[in-house]
Amino acid sequence: MLPRKVVIETDILAKNNRMAQGNRALFRAKGLFVLNLVSSPGSGKTAILERTLRDMAGACRPAVIEGDQQTNNDAVRIAATGVPVKQVNTGAGCHLDAHMVLHACETFDLDNLDLLLIENVGNLVCPASFDLGEHHKVVVLSVTEGEDKPLKYPQMFHAADIMLLNKVDLLPYLDFDLESCREMARRVSPEITIFEVSSKTGEGMDAWYAWLSDGIGKSKG
Amino acid sequence: MLPRKVVIETDILAKNNRMAQGNRALFRAKGLFVLNLVSSPGSGKTAILERTLRDMAGACRPAVIEGDQQTNNDAVRIAATGVPVKQVNTGAGCHLDAHMVLHACETFDLDNLDLLLIENVGNLVCPASFDLGEHHKVVVLSVTEGEDKPLKYPQMFHAADIMLLNKVDLLPYLDFDLESCREMARRVSPEITIFEVSSKTGEGMDAWYAWLSDGIGKSKG
Repeated sequence: MLPRKVVIETDILAKNNRMAQGNRALFRAKGLFVLNLVSSPGSGKTAILERTLRDMAGACRPAVIEGDQQTNNDAVRIAATGVPVKQVNTGAGCHLDAHMVLHACETFDLDNLDLLLIENVGNLVCPASFDLGEHHKVVVLSVTEGEDKPLKYPQMFHAADIMLLNKVDLLPYLDFDLESCREMARRVSPEITIFEVSSKTGEGMDAWYAWLSDGIGKSKG
Repeated sequence: MLPRKVVIETDILAKNNRMAQGNRALFRAKGLFVLNLVSSPGSGKTAILERTLRDMAGACRPAVIEGDQQTNNDAVRIAATGVPVKQVNTGAGCHLDAHMVLHACETFDLDNLDLLLIENVGNLVCPASFDLGEHHKVVVLSVTEGEDKPLKYPQMFHAADIMLLNKVDLLPYLDFDLESCREMARRVSPEITIFEVSSKTGEGMDAWYAWLSDGIGKSKG
């Protein structure tokens, strides 16, 4: 059974990788900066997007793809910021794939965008294997989840080159060792860039916005 | 491609279900009460187990199986309580399956146990589909993750009949609507039993211990 399973998985991943290359070419042609946000459920991806979109209003032309097993709750929240958004429900599925992203992109006017933010299904395992054609995987870790997640889910943290350490406003109420968390993240992803932020208070968000603006500028070429 | 994938997945799930039935027969023969703890990464499953094992020391004969992609961090924490524990690393895998659990059980003296606690890989999607032969799936949701997780990951909350709502000690610092969360959980799992707990302060844990003791008594039959 196992060899058959492996063959099929390889087929699926190879097919996804081909589609992701197509997405990448499309994003390059349109001068779009594209991020794939991944995390555990409830780490605050949507709240980070809401605050980012409001604070950067007028400074860029963004769109958002929202991945969830069920509900359009997150798309409703993003729509309230006035930014174009497309909800993708994966049903039993545990990740977005490149094909879903391409379809979602058909609902946007790509010529008038410069930033595409893709919020993946909340899952620190499966989305690590599926390239969507993005420039960067951005892993969000909330300080309420504990320091050791990079070591326990190394594929995801290895695949990401940006980490948003969120909910730092809760640090006074937790036993969380910031330096230990940074060290564990760097152990699986030595070049990872870490932003320590609170989407609630806004702490640390300016550095993230500066990084975003830089990426948007470079993608326009 | 999709039909082939579905066939293979059906094969894998059918094979797992057969093995889970075998596990179930074994657990019944040994008079073991078996729980499968599922949640997002970092919701506090291990901390709940640590406190439960310390507070119930002498009141039952437990063992623990720890599922993680990588590291034996959690097994080390459980071993410190003096309880037999077996770490299972799934590597790229996103869930435990019935075969892994059967193998892990070979390391325990089942005739001298009455409670087996299985901590699954932190993932609110994939473990929902894999029966391990347990009596109950216990879903842990921490209040830092937001109220709407039952609607966004309905398969898991539907599969669970017990929910531990953890980290209630942080409620004063969060915008979290308890009643709304309870309502959403019951919408996908009408008969779900909810325990509101803090593994840090011990709040609410007694009701959980009473439920555990009741289950252990019934399983001895």
